[in-house]
Amino acid sequence: MEKIAPTQFPIHELLARRWSPRAFSPRKVEPGVLMQLFEAARWAASSFNEQPWSFIVATSDNAEQFQRMLSVLVPFNAAWVQHAPVVALSVAKLRFAHNNEVNRHALHDVGQAAASLAIQATALGLAIHQMAGFDVEKARAEFSIPAGYEPGAVMAIGYPGDADSLPAPLREKELAPRSRQPLEKILFAGKWGETSPLLGASGKQQKA
Amino acid sequence: MEKIAPTQFPIHELLARRWSPRAFSPRKVEPGVLMQLFEAARWAASSFNEQPWSFIVATSDNAEQFQRMLSVLVPFNAAWVQHAPVVALSVAKLRFAHNNEVNRHALHDVGQAAASLAIQATALGLAIHQMAGFDVEKARAEFSIPAGYEPGAVMAIGYPGDADSLPAPLREKELAPRSRQPLEKILFAGKWGETSPLLGASGKQQKA
Repeated sequence: MEKIAPTQFPIHELLARRWSPRAFSPRKVEPGVLMQLFEAARWAASSFNEQPWSFIVATSDNAEQFQRMLSVLVPFNAAWVQHAPVVALSVAKLRFAHNNEVNRHALHDVGQAAASLAIQATALGLAIHQMAGFDVEKARAEFSIPAGYEPGAVMAIGYPGDADSLPAPLREKELAPRSRQPLEKILFAGKWGETSPLLGASGKQQKA
Repeated sequence: MEKIAPTQFPIHELLARRWSPRAFSPRKVEPGVLMQLFEAARWAASSFNEQPWSFIVATSDNAEQFQRMLSVLVPFNAAWVQHAPVVALSVAKLRFAHNNEVNRHALHDVGQAAASLAIQATALGLAIHQMAGFDVEKARAEFSIPAGYEPGAVMAIGYPGDADSLPAPLREKELAPRSRQPLEKILFAGKWGETSPLLGASGKQQKA
């Protein structure tokens, strides 16, 4: 299923097509294809090129690891994620390697890596769905994540599935239109809260 | 100038071509084109679709606003950013609108929006360079950013310029090869620090 973003201004089709489904096909993801996703994450931008990201990945081929990954999710998420073939957890390194100072952008840059991963997934016909709904301390214990590192988000990864495979309440969410706040609410100039006049000056001549 | 990422596995050309130059052309960015970048940011993924991002944008057309934006940068950055036609600051909303709880992913999701913006820029022949090197409290004061919101990163935006326009030490950085840690160091399975066997199983058959 495709859910193209209804944009105010045109954006690249990979960005418009990226969304977060809950219906995944049981089709396995070939290891070489999966590596392309993490490769995309690897080349994200980061403060001081620190690359504060790492990922713990579990595939349904390894039932023990997969079940442990599902066990850290809140039950609402585990119920649908169990049908995805791959689940991964991002982890942020909280201090810089070069001076041991706190990296204020650690999670920010893990987010950049996750966004790159999502766009690479879209390019390959895959989808990812990131989740905040998991037990951070359980994840830390389950995967021996050391002090100084912070679990980021859990993501379900796979080929898109059929919305009809979802139970009714999730099916409704799956089919609901995508929405965002208008640009007028988030793009300021001069002062926080004052909408940039560029938005008017653009004349929306680029409107798709 | 192009600086294609030397990848272990092939990634989409937009991701491979995205990098963070310091040499910008003085060419202005048309308002409609600039809006496409923020539109891309707007459609990023976020926890609970909170969309915790906002942006304060300054263009060189408005000298007063532009100088104020430059004034929050560390001098090392201000020296080269002054030649870019657009500079923006991302801002993260730290609590969820729906329940006022702390949003642990606020900066993470602002990072996702920034990555989307960077990829849209690449698609349009523009470049962005994000910076952690600025005075967060000065930015807060200068742009009246309220409590509960956190300045994220400053980004220079524009069309790519000529590396020869940079002073020698920056020119060297501009021409240096791109580098990242190998996937073996960041992709784990079962336990933090244990390299995923999928990396071997992939056979790197996708190698470009």
